Amino acid sequence: MIYLDNAASTQIYEEVLNSMLPYLKEQYGNPSSIHRYGRLSRKAIEKARRQIASLINADPSEVLITSGGTESNNTALKGLTGNHVYGHIITSLVEHDAILEPCKELSKNGFDIDYLPVNKFGMVNPSDLQKCISQKTNLVSIMFGNNEVGTIQPIFELAKICHEYKIPFHTDAVQAVGKIPINVKDLGIDLLSISSHKLNGPKGIGALYIKNGIGLDPVILGGGQEHGLRSGTENVANIVGFGKACEIAQNNLQKNISHLEMLRNKLIEKILNNIPEVYLNGHPKVRLPHNAHFTFLGVNGEDLIIKLDEYGIAASTGSACSVNTQKASHVLQAMGFSHEQITGSLRLTVGTLNNKSEIDDAVDVLKKIVHELRAVSPYKEKYSFVSKN
Amino acid sequence: MIYLDNAASTQIYEEVLNSMLPYLKEQYGNPSSIHRYGRLSRKAIEKARRQIASLINADPSEVLITSGGTESNNTALKGLTGNHVYGHIITSLVEHDAILEPCKELSKNGFDIDYLPVNKFGMVNPSDLQKCISQKTNLVSIMFGNNEVGTIQPIFELAKICHEYKIPFHTDAVQAVGKIPINVKDLGIDLLSISSHKLNGPKGIGALYIKNGIGLDPVILGGGQEHGLRSGTENVANIVGFGKACEIAQNNLQKNISHLEMLRNKLIEKILNNIPEVYLNGHPKVRLPHNAHFTFLGVNGEDLIIKLDEYGIAASTGSACSVNTQKASHVLQAMGFSHEQITGSLRLTVGTLNNKSEIDDAVDVLKKIVHELRAVSPYKEKYSFVSKN
Repeated sequence: MIYLDNAASTQIYEEVLNSMLPYLKEQYGNPSSIHRYGRLSRKAIEKARRQIASLINADPSEVLITSGGTESNNTALKGLTGNHVYGHIITSLVEHDAILEPCKELSKNGFDIDYLPVNKFGMVNPSDLQKCISQKTNLVSIMFGNNEVGTIQPIFELAKICHEYKIPFHTDAVQAVGKIPINVKDLGIDLLSISSHKLNGPKGIGALYIKNGIGLDPVILGGGQEHGLRSGTENVANIVGFGKACEIAQNNLQKNISHLEMLRNKLIEKILNNIPEVYLNGHPKVRLPHNAHFTFLGVNGEDLIIKLDEYGIAASTGSACSVNTQKASHVLQAMGFSHEQITGSLRLTVGTLNNKSEIDDAVDVLKKIVHELRAVSPYKEKYSFVSKN
Repeated sequence: MIYLDNAASTQIYEEVLNSMLPYLKEQYGNPSSIHRYGRLSRKAIEKARRQIASLINADPSEVLITSGGTESNNTALKGLTGNHVYGHIITSLVEHDAILEPCKELSKNGFDIDYLPVNKFGMVNPSDLQKCISQKTNLVSIMFGNNEVGTIQPIFELAKICHEYKIPFHTDAVQAVGKIPINVKDLGIDLLSISSHKLNGPKGIGALYIKNGIGLDPVILGGGQEHGLRSGTENVANIVGFGKACEIAQNNLQKNISHLEMLRNKLIEKILNNIPEVYLNGHPKVRLPHNAHFTFLGVNGEDLIIKLDEYGIAASTGSACSVNTQKASHVLQAMGFSHEQITGSLRLTVGTLNNKSEIDDAVDVLKKIVHELRAVSPYKEKYSFVSKN
């Protein structure tokens, strides 16, 4: 198997799993118990919290542990608006559904939501944000790096504008954390969502960075865990694994970036050089190091994935999560793509565990498959599918 | 270590961990991905859903997977009331905070909440429910078995009354599922919360049974997982482990009940026979098979736990979760206990992995510790602490 769907989920590092195992075996105490079993679990959580905080240069007290990126996003949006019966939220057209769907719900409850447009690379213009802010704006939420096309948003500029108006700035950074350097203090971020399974940690665990001084209401209430901000017995083993994954990501950040960029650039170069009528989507330079996203004209992206799967290659059309809703990519629509361009899209996302020869093999298969599919394409008369080589 | 805090959390069975390992190693696909990696994860989730459903005689389509019992309770309460701006909820005075705290929030949002009283054994009277129901009652939520004192509520009778008035009946059954036979159809339950780590499964995962035909709003929105009722990438490994734990619980239910009751009865008998001025709390017969809860007059329960811990015995005063809030047990208060009786409380909860000799050893230590603490107790003049043996 050649796994090129690392934006959907990643393999847990062996070291991460090893860190989890004691908490899946003998260390099963409830962290709220006051006996030794409980105290050891509590201690493990606090160590993990420091590891998570360190990766983004936060204070451990600023890290709220959640069940994942989606819950982090929901907590940021609902938690910050919980005290208000109406208000105004600014987000963008290219957010993940974990932002768009809570926004829709808030809209039903009386909030005004503005969606900033993006350019053809999927990038928001900070001046659009400036124009959109009003006196009733409660929150701005713009993702860090796009999950489909990889474009990185101008986070520093966006956060700066928010601060001029004293509006909290949240960013869904699940695709970016551990992939590029993120310093929440330098960037001026007030709230930031992280997902463990996107950075070689376990699934079902994540965090929300909440800058000291920012108050928010809990979404899940009960026993008062996480200082009352997120109740429920802590998922100790997954928290420990998440912490370890953050530590590894931090210690290897530059090395990983180089490796991911090398693989990704090779992938892009080989595909553009070997397959005709194919276009790279997203920003050519300002993009996440692991993301490559293409449009293969005259081909259906889902057919591509199914064919690649037959050859043991794991890929995606865009967001894995959008499979549940079966709708055309709202990200590509926002970038001005035609239905045909959207249909032919393929996302290939590399991971730290991929190697060069996998890239070579994957492109060879892809070239063959694209050729086969185009031979029976209803668009075959429209484009020049003659191979460039 | 002698672990007698199984109501707080339980050890993961080796077989459960083994079932999880493939999903923590090579099977890391996102269940929403359409390639083989994703499909294998999806298949594993659906198998687990059948195992969970089977334990309570539900249809798999009636099982919503959540991040744990607390989220299940929040989803039941908020999900069923989400469409209403006001209404009426009936619950009891002895619920877990995972019910009481969401109720408090709903109360702030305009809901009327009625808390049914309990008798000295901690049991609700169905006729009190009948009297309390009004035309605007949206939901009744009464726990199955109490997490502190173990008393089992008259669920069949309570559900029956609700059905007469066409009001949905929810029960927080995290302490009861896997410990006693529960058939949601026979009992007439509409919604039921389960927690994996209470039945030798992993932490951070749980379920909400939602009877077919009952609609509710999601609490966590996003990619549309769990048919839109609970978004976020599924915690595949923990779901698989949870399913396996349910399967094991179902296959061994009668054997486990016998084992737990034998240990628990031995524990109660030895303590009552060997230590003076000690009382068993909760219903003497209608109680969860793993729960024993006592009041040791003249002793502080927290001191007991700390001392027991020094001897390697893990116990609790009551709910592990209440440690975060440091408040006196609302359950014992509702049962009419004095401050002194509450202070002297100790919960000992056995598990399937405990054995007889652990019970003997634990009581020997407890007898010694109680004697020592009473020797310096401010109440020592008040009670007759002369040993019965």
